[in-house]
Order: sequence, then C-alpha cells, then structure tokens
Amino acid sequence: MVDRFDLERLVSFADVANAAERLHGVAHCTPVMTSRTVDERVQANVFFKCENFQRTGSFKFRGAYNALSRLSDEQKRRGVLTYSSGNHAQAIALAGKLLGISTTIVMPENAPEVKLEATGDYGAEIVLYHPSEVERERLGRQIAAERGLTVVPPYDHPHVIAGQGTVAKELFEEVGELDCLLVCCGGGGLLSGCAIAARTLSPSCRTIGVEPERADDATRSFYTKTLHTIKSPDTIADGARTPSLGEITFPLVLHYVSEMVAVSEASIARSMFFLWERMKLVVEPTGALATAALLEGEVIEPNTRVGVVVTGGNVALSQLPHLLDLAQH
Amino acid sequence: MVDRFDLERLVSFADVANAAERLHGVAHCTPVMTSRTVDERVQANVFFKCENFQRTGSFKFRGAYNALSRLSDEQKRRGVLTYSSGNHAQAIALAGKLLGISTTIVMPENAPEVKLEATGDYGAEIVLYHPSEVERERLGRQIAAERGLTVVPPYDHPHVIAGQGTVAKELFEEVGELDCLLVCCGGGGLLSGCAIAARTLSPSCRTIGVEPERADDATRSFYTKTLHTIKSPDTIADGARTPSLGEITFPLVLHYVSEMVAVSEASIARSMFFLWERMKLVVEPTGALATAALLEGEVIEPNTRVGVVVTGGNVALSQLPHLLDLAQH
Repeated sequence: MVDRFDLERLVSFADVANAAERLHGVAHCTPVMTSRTVDERVQANVFFKCENFQRTGSFKFRGAYNALSRLSDEQKRRGVLTYSSGNHAQAIALAGKLLGISTTIVMPENAPEVKLEATGDYGAEIVLYHPSEVERERLGRQIAAERGLTVVPPYDHPHVIAGQGTVAKELFEEVGELDCLLVCCGGGGLLSGCAIAARTLSPSCRTIGVEPERADDATRSFYTKTLHTIKSPDTIADGARTPSLGEITFPLVLHYVSEMVAVSEASIARSMFFLWERMKLVVEPTGALATAALLEGEVIEPNTRVGVVVTGGNVALSQLPHLLDLAQH
Repeated sequence: MVDRFDLERLVSFADVANAAERLHGVAHCTPVMTSRTVDERVQANVFFKCENFQRTGSFKFRGAYNALSRLSDEQKRRGVLTYSSGNHAQAIALAGKLLGISTTIVMPENAPEVKLEATGDYGAEIVLYHPSEVERERLGRQIAAERGLTVVPPYDHPHVIAGQGTVAKELFEEVGELDCLLVCCGGGGLLSGCAIAARTLSPSCRTIGVEPERADDATRSFYTKTLHTIKSPDTIADGARTPSLGEITFPLVLHYVSEMVAVSEASIARSMFFLWERMKLVVEPTGALATAALLEGEVIEPNTRVGVVVTGGNVALSQLPHLLDLAQH
C-alpha cells in the first residue's frame, strides 16, 4: 500500500485544477439541475450534476482529453490505444480527433453496433476481439507494444482521475460546499477524482461511492481493506462491470471516500426512469446509480445539502423494454 | 377581423414583460442547449430552449400562472375551471395550488392514468366526462356558470398568450437576436406569444410555426386567411390536436408569424428520439415538432442563428414501443 504522502502526490487537487484548465472551452461545463419533488421526498437540498450532457454523452471525455493532452509530442505522434466497449472508447476517440492524435480502440466483437459506429465516426481505428477467448487488457498491451502506442486505461491513471475530478470541482464552484456527494463507482476513477476535489473545496463533505449490489467489489474492498474482484458481474449498470478497483484508485478510494453503498438492479432501473419521467433527463443505468442510493437508500441526513453525479446518458433505446420490465419489480 | 391597432393592444410586448415579472422566481428560467451535431447537420447555429425542464414538464405553466395571478380577488376566491387532458391541466392545477386558488379540471374519462394522477396530486378537482358524448368546452362553460368559476382556456386568452411569450423573451435575452425562431403550433398561444416577443426583441427574426401534417389546420388557415378546423386529428403530437386557432390567436398568428410548415408523423418520432439519444433530453412528441422542421425540413438558411422551442417532456413510457416503431418508418 502506498503511504499517505506518496498518495497525495499521486493525484492532488492541483492536478484536478490543471485538468480543469486544459478542459476549459473544450468540455462542457454541464448544468446542475434541482427538483422540488426530490427535495421534498428526501427532505434535503439536492444538486444533480448532469454529465449526461457532456460531450460523447458521459464524464469520460474529461479524463480522456486530459490524459491525451498531457502526452509528450513523441507519444502524440505515435498515437494511443485503449480497451473499452463503453463510454471511455468514444471519449478517447473524440479527444484524439480534437488533439490530432490517432487512436486505436480494442473492443469486443459483441459490442453494441451503435457504440462501434459512434467510436468509428470519431475516426478511431477499432480492433475487434472475441470476448470469450481473449483477455482484453493483455491483447491491448500487446498491440500497443507492437505498434509503439501509449495505453490510456479507462480509470487507473493519474491524468484520467484528475480529469474526472473536474466534475466535482465544477459542482462545488457552482453550488458551494455540500454535506455529502454521491458518486457511482466502477473502476473508481470518477469516485476518487471527485473525492480529491471535495477534500479541498468542501472539506467537511462526505464523499459516498455507489455500486450495484451485483458488482459490489469496491464496497467489499473498501470495508475489508483488501482488493476484491468480481469478474463480468451481471448488472444493467454496464459502466460498473469493471472487475475491481485499480492499483491507484484503490488506495485513493480508501483514503478519500467516507462510505460505500450498494443498490439493487430494480432500484437502478426505477431511479433511471424517475430521472427520465420527472426530471426529463435521458440517463443510462450506470448514470442512475448515485440517484438510486439517494432515492432508495438511507444515506441522507435531513436538511443537508447533497450532490449527486449523473454520469452519462448513452442508453440504446432497444434496451428500454427490458429496463421497464425490471423497474416494475 | 380585428384591425392592426386593436390587435397590438390585445396582447403587446408590455404584457409579455409583465408576465415575465409575475413569473420571476416562480417559473424556471429553463436552460438553452446547443449541439455540435445539429449545427453541423444544418449548417447553422441552433439554440434549443428547453421547456421540458419547466415546472409541470411543459411551457404551459407560464401562461396558466400568469392568467391566474391576474384574476381579481373575487375571481380568485371563487376559483377557476379549465378543460384539458394534457399539460394545461397540470399547469392550472399547480398554479392554483401556488396561488391558493381552487381549480376544477374537466378531463375525458380516457385520459392517461398518469395525467389524472399528476393533476389530482396538485389538489385540483377533476370532473370526468365521456369524450364521445359531450363537447368538453360546452360542458366546462356550463359547470363554470353553475359554480361561478372563471374559465381559463388553454390558449385563446391574452394572459395565457402573454405568459407563453416569456419563453421567447428569455431565449432572446440569453442568446441575443436570431434570424429565425421555430415554434410548434396547437391552438397558437405559444406561437403568437413568442412571435410578439420576437417582434420587439429581435425585429428581423422570422417566427415560423410548425404543425403535424395530420393536424395542419393552422397552416391552412394561415395561407388562406380563413379559419380551418380539423376535429380530433390522428397525430402522435397530442398537444397539436386542438381543432383550430382561436379568435385571438388566429389574427395574432396572421399578423406576427412569417411562415407555417407541417411535418410528418415519422419525422416527429425520429426527431423526438434524436433529442433523446443525441441531446439526452426527454421530450414528448409535440415537444419535438419544431426540431422536426429543423432536422427534416428545408426551412433554414445556412449560416444563420436559429431558435427552437422544445415545449414539453410529458411522455408516458408505455407509449415508447409504438413511437419507436413509428420512428423506423
């Protein structure tokens, strides 16, 4: 385990502030929404930071762009590679396009057509693999080594974490200090980045990570202080299907996060449709995790000020019948 | 036909400005969204005014609250009545609740359960009728006369029109002058109110009304200068199922609006899902009418600045399979 001094040097608030400067005028400063219905229901003042309106439809663009912008000229010339079937792929593809860096994305053959298309539309080269036969990270690193590409992983990287932390930085700068900040957790990049920003901008704020019950590896890791892994968890929150926290995000989460909670599949689906129907926000299942903890959990004290990060809105409409069915359970 | 001087006295920009003052701190100043994808596709700068985020989920709250706030004390004491199965019902119910005015809403027995519930939740008294047997407006006026209630109609009323005009007023105040403003048209309250605001705040802006092809009564009325009526038109844009423009809105539309266009059912559904998938906005079919004219029509000159009013987001998720099917045609 890294010691505290090294940890704070690894990713500091200065890195988040630096990322914010790099993202200025490139990423959207996304809107903060409020809802009287929600406030009455939970008896608190709730601020939803809406990263579903971010470029490429999720917060992932922040970390991707920050990481790519910090490469050396030589690295930029050679290009980057990542492995992702989700929002990080599109984020890297767009960041590469904007910065003139060629991008290679390793994606499973069975990735949704719409995600393959969106990633390709930004000009990325897509390398497909058969998910049952190959471990994507190993394949990615092999191709990167062969071609001299820099790997930009989806979460376990200081510049990615710092970029994601700008979500919370913007939120605090807009609404002021909070008592509590709810952030979903997959690999822990967003969660740790936001917790770092909170520590400086709202020191008494408790940052709470939220996972699906079916993919609660980070919750277990947090409470046992031992890294737990859950391979290919079966959850509708596809952004939280990452097997475990990373080498960097695990100690950061342990150090900066106050609490971890896990929510059921039905509560994720119900909260997603609550955001659709009542707040008119198109949100993907992963994007509704923090809201689910708010609406269905008991994490909130009355009369407090609560931030909720709505992380993304990339949901295939073809999934809707299944999700509607689930929400009714 | 009213002459021009009387017309401008009927609803003036001063009335819109007065409505804006009454709505200040009560209605949301809704966000204006932009999309690089849209701008590239139509080669223009497009500003979406997002009234789906308005209280009660549509712009209707503006006109309803303005109208109720202008009643005499005696009228307020006696209460108001309206006839609507849609967004105006919820808008009147909430406005009445906020102003302490009792509200009676005449709704068809077959109105969606969710709309009946939402209207009742705001404390309105709901009177149901059998839609095939009774003409709702006559029934409404009869009950109002019996009970001494003031009728607040959904569009053909100066204070309702002035309230709706605050949508365009806010848009111009936020983004400056525009070359063109696209507004959907049912009974013409929003369209005429916005056109009045445009005439003062952006005098060279062309206000264009948009209807479904299947409910193009206002388009026909506009071009023939004779009031056309289409009873119970079969369109997914339920907010545009009004049979005709009103006694007040017809001359206002003729005087202030530059052009009327009509769009197909499939283009409405496609545009609705475009707003969902690409802009992450939950929008109801009627709310996508102006966007449909933008994306599928040829109303826009290149390199212009265009406003689009997204009017509401109250769509029952149970309708989605049908709408998805339609969008694929």
